[in-house]
Amino acid sequence: MYELNLIGIGTGNPDHVTFQGAQAIREADLILIPRKGENKADLAGLREQIIAQVTETPPETAYFDIPKRRAEDGYLRGVDEWHDAIALRWQDTIASHPQAKQVALLIWGDPSLYDSSLRIASRLTPYPTTRVIPGITALQALTAAHAIPINDIGAPYVVTTGRRIRDDGWPEGTGKVAVMLDGECSFQSLEMSNFYIWWGAYVGMKEQVLVSGPLDKVAAKILETRAKARADHGWIMDIYLLQKL
Amino acid sequence: MYELNLIGIGTGNPDHVTFQGAQAIREADLILIPRKGENKADLAGLREQIIAQVTETPPETAYFDIPKRRAEDGYLRGVDEWHDAIALRWQDTIASHPQAKQVALLIWGDPSLYDSSLRIASRLTPYPTTRVIPGITALQALTAAHAIPINDIGAPYVVTTGRRIRDDGWPEGTGKVAVMLDGECSFQSLEMSNFYIWWGAYVGMKEQVLVSGPLDKVAAKILETRAKARADHGWIMDIYLLQKL
Repeated sequence: MYELNLIGIGTGNPDHVTFQGAQAIREADLILIPRKGENKADLAGLREQIIAQVTETPPETAYFDIPKRRAEDGYLRGVDEWHDAIALRWQDTIASHPQAKQVALLIWGDPSLYDSSLRIASRLTPYPTTRVIPGITALQALTAAHAIPINDIGAPYVVTTGRRIRDDGWPEGTGKVAVMLDGECSFQSLEMSNFYIWWGAYVGMKEQVLVSGPLDKVAAKILETRAKARADHGWIMDIYLLQKL
Repeated sequence: MYELNLIGIGTGNPDHVTFQGAQAIREADLILIPRKGENKADLAGLREQIIAQVTETPPETAYFDIPKRRAEDGYLRGVDEWHDAIALRWQDTIASHPQAKQVALLIWGDPSLYDSSLRIASRLTPYPTTRVIPGITALQALTAAHAIPINDIGAPYVVTTGRRIRDDGWPEGTGKVAVMLDGECSFQSLEMSNFYIWWGAYVGMKEQVLVSGPLDKVAAKILETRAKARADHGWIMDIYLLQKL
């Protein structure tokens, strides 16, 4: 039986890797690397670069294709079936390397935050002992890039998705909301004159782009910057923090 | 004029340090190290250990005493005056090292999350260029230790404080709440049969203690474990995640 190591690698800056993450990479005897499926970002290349950076004798790597997600059955059911399908790919890939005792995946950001790895791992049979190594999240890369705290003193904040902002509006009882997984600039559904925004794309990477200001003043600039960056790079990952005024 | 580097160092595991953090430590010519004030935890010792771990030619270090916080004037005003007082200590310490061009502080966790460093830095005159290097937070160390995601699929979560849970109860519109800065086990103020808890103290450190389960079943165990650990070590830092059932 093998152990599964889910190693957070940060948001695309190879220097986001922690000493603990580097050690876990060195100790792995099999690293699973997904191909495609992640917004056309060349994340397989990034993962190879990180492995090469931390060891001169890289562990064996095995590539697997991420299956397509079916959209027609509703969001949650679609995600559920998709996780089943990915788990089968993991299972097959690991089974073809029966000698591997320490299996690892390099997880964009942190395995705890809007990431499927733990849910996919829970579908493996038999269920392997799973170790999580935390990594820098996009949220932290965003606040670091803007040099801002995420919370007001002693106050709560909410982390949510673009879909929730569109469907449910501003969450009650908080002045600060971070929005992830938003392909549609859902801040446009809010009363924009009431908010300040700190936005970033490719946060932490050399391609990083930042915009901040009163939302009604900078919304058009964000839309334009985002569309151009996406066209230039062929993919985009962005995130933002909103403050209620 | 100098640049100020706020370097997140994680939660007490020296291997939480990122490559970026290690590089910033090596490039510093002055590192400010606080003495006392942090729950009696030997964090000065931890900081020295981290510096020694990343460089054989450590930069100059300068110690400063953290002033006492006055409690009598109300919470926010007390915090405000305390930040003023700390900023003066930073300012004096930096002024006595006029040759330093890269000044650094090693910040427990991440400078964005329930941390005062950015607010203290904003009081420095003239205001230095400030660079933030993200670090692993206690929240991530907690979820990693329990091997759990923080959010449900596509769902929001709230991060708040013990005080807010006591004063305001469970936040509306979310099933998951992480609680920080809670010296009083404020989960006791909730209807405990409605929640599941993942609790941890010293998360990420070798002293780490974890308890999880239905809140009404494990609350007594957490209180007892926490009291004993605090007595044994002379200090405690803990954090927890709650799921509404």
